[in-house]
Amino acid sequence: MKQLFNPESIVLVGISESPDNLGRQIAFNLLRFGYPGKLYLVGRNPGVFEGRPILTVDDLPEGIDLAIILTPAATVPAYLEACGKKKIPYAIIESGGFSEFSVEGLELERQLLKIAQQYRMRLVGPNCIGICNPDAGILTHFLPTERAEVQSGHLAIIAQSGGVILTCTDILSANGLGVSKTVSMGNKTDLSEADYVRYLIQDPNTHAVILYLESVVDGRELVDLARTASKPLLVYKSNTNPQSARIAESHTAALANDDRVVDAVFQQAGILRLRNFSEMVSYGKAFSLPALKGNRLAIFSRSGGYAIVAADLANEFGFNLPAFSPVVIDAIRQYFRASIINENNPLDLGTVFDFESYPILIEACLKDMRPDAVMLIFNFRKADHEKALSVGLKLAKLSQTYQTPIALVFFSEHHGIRSLQQAIGYPLFNEVYEAMLALKGANRFNATRNQDTPPEPLSFYDGNKEAARQILHSCRMENRQPLLHEALRLCELYQLPVSPWAFVQSQPEAHQAADELGFPLALKVVSGVISHKSDSGGLMLNLRTHDELGKALDSMTGILKDSVNGFLLQKMVETGREVILGGKRDSAFGPIILLGLGGIFVEILQDSVIRLAPVSRDSAFQMVRELKGFRLLEGVRGQPGVDLNQLADSLVRLSQLVCDFPEIQELDINPLILYPKGGTVVDARIFISSDPQKEERTQEA
Amino acid sequence: MKQLFNPESIVLVGISESPDNLGRQIAFNLLRFGYPGKLYLVGRNPGVFEGRPILTVDDLPEGIDLAIILTPAATVPAYLEACGKKKIPYAIIESGGFSEFSVEGLELERQLLKIAQQYRMRLVGPNCIGICNPDAGILTHFLPTERAEVQSGHLAIIAQSGGVILTCTDILSANGLGVSKTVSMGNKTDLSEADYVRYLIQDPNTHAVILYLESVVDGRELVDLARTASKPLLVYKSNTNPQSARIAESHTAALANDDRVVDAVFQQAGILRLRNFSEMVSYGKAFSLPALKGNRLAIFSRSGGYAIVAADLANEFGFNLPAFSPVVIDAIRQYFRASIINENNPLDLGTVFDFESYPILIEACLKDMRPDAVMLIFNFRKADHEKALSVGLKLAKLSQTYQTPIALVFFSEHHGIRSLQQAIGYPLFNEVYEAMLALKGANRFNATRNQDTPPEPLSFYDGNKEAARQILHSCRMENRQPLLHEALRLCELYQLPVSPWAFVQSQPEAHQAADELGFPLALKVVSGVISHKSDSGGLMLNLRTHDELGKALDSMTGILKDSVNGFLLQKMVETGREVILGGKRDSAFGPIILLGLGGIFVEILQDSVIRLAPVSRDSAFQMVRELKGFRLLEGVRGQPGVDLNQLADSLVRLSQLVCDFPEIQELDINPLILYPKGGTVVDARIFISSDPQKEERTQEA
Repeated sequence: MKQLFNPESIVLVGISESPDNLGRQIAFNLLRFGYPGKLYLVGRNPGVFEGRPILTVDDLPEGIDLAIILTPAATVPAYLEACGKKKIPYAIIESGGFSEFSVEGLELERQLLKIAQQYRMRLVGPNCIGICNPDAGILTHFLPTERAEVQSGHLAIIAQSGGVILTCTDILSANGLGVSKTVSMGNKTDLSEADYVRYLIQDPNTHAVILYLESVVDGRELVDLARTASKPLLVYKSNTNPQSARIAESHTAALANDDRVVDAVFQQAGILRLRNFSEMVSYGKAFSLPALKGNRLAIFSRSGGYAIVAADLANEFGFNLPAFSPVVIDAIRQYFRASIINENNPLDLGTVFDFESYPILIEACLKDMRPDAVMLIFNFRKADHEKALSVGLKLAKLSQTYQTPIALVFFSEHHGIRSLQQAIGYPLFNEVYEAMLALKGANRFNATRNQDTPPEPLSFYDGNKEAARQILHSCRMENRQPLLHEALRLCELYQLPVSPWAFVQSQPEAHQAADELGFPLALKVVSGVISHKSDSGGLMLNLRTHDELGKALDSMTGILKDSVNGFLLQKMVETGREVILGGKRDSAFGPIILLGLGGIFVEILQDSVIRLAPVSRDSAFQMVRELKGFRLLEGVRGQPGVDLNQLADSLVRLSQLVCDFPEIQELDINPLILYPKGGTVVDARIFISSDPQKEERTQEA
Repeated sequence: MKQLFNPESIVLVGISESPDNLGRQIAFNLLRFGYPGKLYLVGRNPGVFEGRPILTVDDLPEGIDLAIILTPAATVPAYLEACGKKKIPYAIIESGGFSEFSVEGLELERQLLKIAQQYRMRLVGPNCIGICNPDAGILTHFLPTERAEVQSGHLAIIAQSGGVILTCTDILSANGLGVSKTVSMGNKTDLSEADYVRYLIQDPNTHAVILYLESVVDGRELVDLARTASKPLLVYKSNTNPQSARIAESHTAALANDDRVVDAVFQQAGILRLRNFSEMVSYGKAFSLPALKGNRLAIFSRSGGYAIVAADLANEFGFNLPAFSPVVIDAIRQYFRASIINENNPLDLGTVFDFESYPILIEACLKDMRPDAVMLIFNFRKADHEKALSVGLKLAKLSQTYQTPIALVFFSEHHGIRSLQQAIGYPLFNEVYEAMLALKGANRFNATRNQDTPPEPLSFYDGNKEAARQILHSCRMENRQPLLHEALRLCELYQLPVSPWAFVQSQPEAHQAADELGFPLALKVVSGVISHKSDSGGLMLNLRTHDELGKALDSMTGILKDSVNGFLLQKMVETGREVILGGKRDSAFGPIILLGLGGIFVEILQDSVIRLAPVSRDSAFQMVRELKGFRLLEGVRGQPGVDLNQLADSLVRLSQLVCDFPEIQELDINPLILYPKGGTVVDARIFISSDPQKEERTQEA
C-alpha cells in the first residue's frame, strides 16, 4: 500500500475546462501541495488545464501508480475498466451515487468491485475524498485547500466521512499535532479499515492511528491487528442508535453494529474508544510522549488548588501518588522557605517563585524515584513567558533523557501558550483533567499489551468435536430450530456440567428413562414451535412418580398435538446461584461470549460481560470479576461463594464450542446453576444458521 | 457588597519601597487596570511609591470603602483593628499563615473575625488574592497582570484558590468569554461562597456564576440561593478523597464533604457540577445564548459524518429530533439537487454548496417549527472564511430575534476560527459533543427551575410534634444512644406504618403484651451497648407460645446481664420487598434523607438516592423512580408491584421528622417492608447529638 500513499505517478480522471468542475480542485490541491511525481489528466473532452493537456485514458502510458476518478457514477465502471487495462494498481473513486444512494447505485458499486478483482486493482471509495500524505505532497481532496491548513505530524486518520477527515485534520493542526497520512474510505467497497490499519501501524512516520467508523465491517481482523500492534488505535465509532442508522445508511451505506459488543471488544483489544474529538487530541498528545509503563505518578503544582484537583483525578483515574523519597525531599527543602514546607505528592510549589528550580526538582525525582510519569501544573502571567519557555525546554529534554512521559499543564494567556507550544515543540495540556485522561489512556493501552494470553487447547478435544459436528450436521439437514436436547448434548461433548437428561418420544421410553434418571423429574416438550415452554404448558416440574409422569405426558401430548417432536426428561436439581452463559456469532466481530448474573441482575440491571471467543482461563476469571454483582458469587453476609473454577472452565469450553462451529448463530445456557462445589447446566438452546455453507465461507475468508 | 466590588476609595496596607514587596504589585495592577477611585498606601515605614506618599493608618481619612491588607500574619490583627476604627466596611486580607498553616495561625484568624464583628467589617480571605472587576478597573492580585490578560465578559468566578481564579480567567478569556467579577475567598473566615453568590446572581453584568470549592461550608444557604436563582451556578467541587483532603487542609484549611451528598444536592438544586474546566467553558458558552426551554432540537450539518455523530449524541443527551415540517422541507428542496434529497433531522447539507442558504433554511425552521434549539455544524476551508462570517452574523441575529439558542459548531483552520469568533461576537463551539453537552446543561438548569414544589404541611402535625419533642428531650436528659423503641414511637407519631410493638421491662409485662399483640412474636433486646442485635443473641424470631417467650427472655437476660434496659416485643410480619429509609443531618447541607433498596441492592450495588429534606410527595416519587432497581418495586415477571404511595408518604413524613428536630443526627428505618397494599416499619434507630443546644443554634443561624 506504500504505492497508494506515495505514488510516483497519478492520473486524474474527470477533469474539464469548466470552472465548476470538481476535478480541477483536486489538480489544484496537488499543485499547491507540491506533488513531485508525474500527473496525467483525463477528461471527457480534450482541452488544456494549467498548461497540461487533457487526455483520454487510451493516451496514457503504462506504469501509472494511482488513478483518481471523479466522474458521474454511471460512467465510473468504464473508466475503471480502462484504468485496469492500463495496469494501474490503485484507484481512488471519489464520485458519489452508489450504494449509499439507490438500488441502481448498489448495482454499479458491485460492478466496480468485479472490475477491480478482474484487473487486480485495489479501490479506495467510492463516495470519498481520498487520501492525504502531506510529506509526499499528496492531497486528493476536491475542496480547495492550502498547504498551510494541514500540519505535518505523526497521527494517521482513517474515516468513512470526508467531512470528518477535514475537521480532524483541522483540530489536530490547531493543537500542534498534525497528521502523517489520512484516508477517507467512503463506501469501503474494496479496501476497508483493516487494510489501511495494517499498513499504517507499520508506517514509521505514524505514532498512532485514529479511526472514525460508522460501521465496522471486518471487525475481527481489525481487532486482531489492534491486539498485536505496538501503536495504539483510537476509534470514534458513531452510528449507535436507530436515529443515526437512518442517516448513516444514506451517507456511506453503513449498517449499525451492536454497540455493547463494540465497547467490550475494543476494550479487550486495547483500542481506545473516543467519546469525542477532544479526547482524540488529548490521547494524541499522550502518544507523542515516551511510552507510559505503569501508574506511579509524581505531580508538581504551582497552584495549591490544582494540587487538590490533581489528587482527586489521580484517585479517580487509578494513579498512585507515591510519597517523595528522602533524596527528593532534600532537594525540595532547598527551595522552600523551611517553615512552610509540605512534602506531599502532589507537591504544592505555591511559595517557590524560582521557576528554574522546577526542572531541578523534577530531575531529582526522575533519578531517584523512577516514577512512571510526571506532571507539572504551571500557571504563570504573561511577564514570565521567557522563564516558562526555559522550564518547558528543559523538561522536554528530561522526558527524552529518562524516557518518561512528563505531562506539562501550562496555564497562561492564550497567545503566549500557543507560541510556547511551538517553541518547545512538545505537547502542552490545557488542564489537569486533560493530562490525566491522556495518561490514563496511555496506561490502558500499555496494560492491554501482552496481557491477553492465548487460550490453551482443550485436552478432550478431537473426538468430541467430531461428534458435535455430526449432530450439527444432521440438525441442519432436518432444518430444525432451535436445538434443545442436541444443545445439551453439545454442552456435554464440550464437558460442560449438564444435569442428567434423556430425550424420549414415547410413554415406554419415558418411563424407562425415569427409572434410570430417578425421580423427581422435570418434563419439557421439544418442539419447533414453542419457545416459552412455561407459558404454554410445555414444562412440568417436580414429577415424583410414574403415575404423575404418565399424566403429564398425556396432558402435553393432548394440548400440543402434532407439533411435538419428543420430550426432554431431566432430574430435578437443587437451587443455587444462577448465571447465564451465551455465545453468539457477531456479524462484524465473529464469535463472542457473554456472561450474565441470573434473575433480576440480568433483567433489571443488564449485568453482563462480553468477550471475543475463544477466552483463556485468565480472561474467563476476569469476566467473572467484572460482573457488578460479583460479590454475590464470591459470597456475602456469611453465605458461601460458588465454584468459580467451574464457572471459568464452563466459559472457556463454551467459547471453544462457538469458535469451532461457525454455523452456531446463538447459544444460550440459561441457567447454569452454581453451587459451592460444582454446577449444573439446566437448559440450553442453540440457533443455527440456515445457510451453514455461507457461514463457513465467511469464516474462512 | 456592591461597595466591595466597586469601591470609590481603597487603602492598600503593606506597601514598602523594597522591590520584593508584594504590595507594590497590587498597586501596579490597580494602576494598569486604570482604577479611577482614590488609592491610599499604608506601610510600616514612610516612603514614596510612584509619587504617592506611604502613610500610616492613623493618617487615613474616614469614609474609605475598602482596605487591602498584605502584611505578615502576626501583624494583620492590629492593622485590621486600625481599619475598623477608621470605619472601613470591607477588608481583603491577602496574607497567608493562618488556619491553613498552624494552630497559632488558627488563633490569629479567630482574632480577625472577632475584630471584624466588633467593627462591623466584612472580610475577604485571609490567604487569598482578592477580587477583580475589570469594568471598574479593579484587580487586587499581587501577581503582575496586564489589562489585556483579562477579558471583560459576563461570567463571575468565585474560588478559594487564587491559582484557580487566575487560570479560569485565562481559560475563559482564551475562549472569547471573559469575566464580570472574580473573587478569591481564601480561608473564608467571614464572607463565604453563599455571600458572594447572593450578590453576584443579582449583578446585572453577570450571566452565570462559576464556583471552585474545596469545601462547602454553608451549603444549605448556597443551595437555597441556587434553587431560586434565575442565573445558573456552575460548581467545580474538588477535595473528594482522603489524599486530596490532606493537601486541601494545608492549602485553604478546607475540610472534605460527603461527595455523594454534594452530588445529589447539587443535582436537586439545578447546580451544574463541573467535571473539568472544559465543561466550564462549554456551559459558559451555552449560558451566553438565549435560554433553552425544552429538548426539541433541529440540526443542520454540512458533513454527513457529523450528522450521524450529532444524532448519536442527541440520543445520548436526551434531545428530541422532530421531523422537519412540510414548510421547512419545501424550503430545503429549493437548495438541493432534487434527486439526492434526504430530509431527516439532522439534515445533511453535504451537497448544498450555497452557504447563504443556511440562514434561510434555519429561519424557515425557527418560524415554522419553533424548535427549542438549533445546531449548525459547518466545516469550511480557509478560502470560505468570508462566507462563513456572513453565515455566522446572520445566525447570531436570528438567535436574538427568535430568542432561541443557535449552537454554531464551526470547523476550520485555527486562526481563522478565532478571528471569526471575535468578528461574530457570538460563541462558537469546537465540536458537536461540546455543543450538545452545553445545551444539555442549559436544559438541565431550565428543567429544575420551578420544578421543586415546596412540601405541603402535614395535617396531623402539631400535637404529634410536641409529643415527639418530649420524647427526644427525655432521651437527651438520660443521654442514651441509640434510640430504639423511642425511634419506633417517633415514627408512629409521624404516621409511618410501624408494626405493632411493646416495650417491656419484666416477664409479667412481656406476657401481658404478648397477649395483646398476639403470637408469633419477635423479641429484641434494648441496650445501649449492643448495636448488632442478631450477632450477640439479642434477637429471637418467631416465638410461638408463652413458654418460648419466657425461655427467650431468661436466656437474653442471662447472657446480657446489666446492660439490658428492656425488651422490644413485635408481632412477626410477612415477608415483602425491603427498603431502607434514612435521615441525616449533614454538616454542610443540613437535613437530608436517603432511600435504598434493601438486601443485596444497597449492599452490593450501593443503590440509593439522596435528597435534601423536607421533600414534597412529587420529589418522593421521583426518588423512588431513580432507584436502579425501581422495576423490582413496580413489579417484574408477573409479580405484583408494591404500594408506592405508602413508600412516598413514608419518605415525606420521615423528611419532616428530621427537619423538625435538629438534634436528630441520624435516623435509620431498616427495613420498611412493602406489600402490594401498605407496608410496615420493622426496625428503626436514631442517634441524637450530644449537644442539642448547639444544633438548634446552628439551625436558627
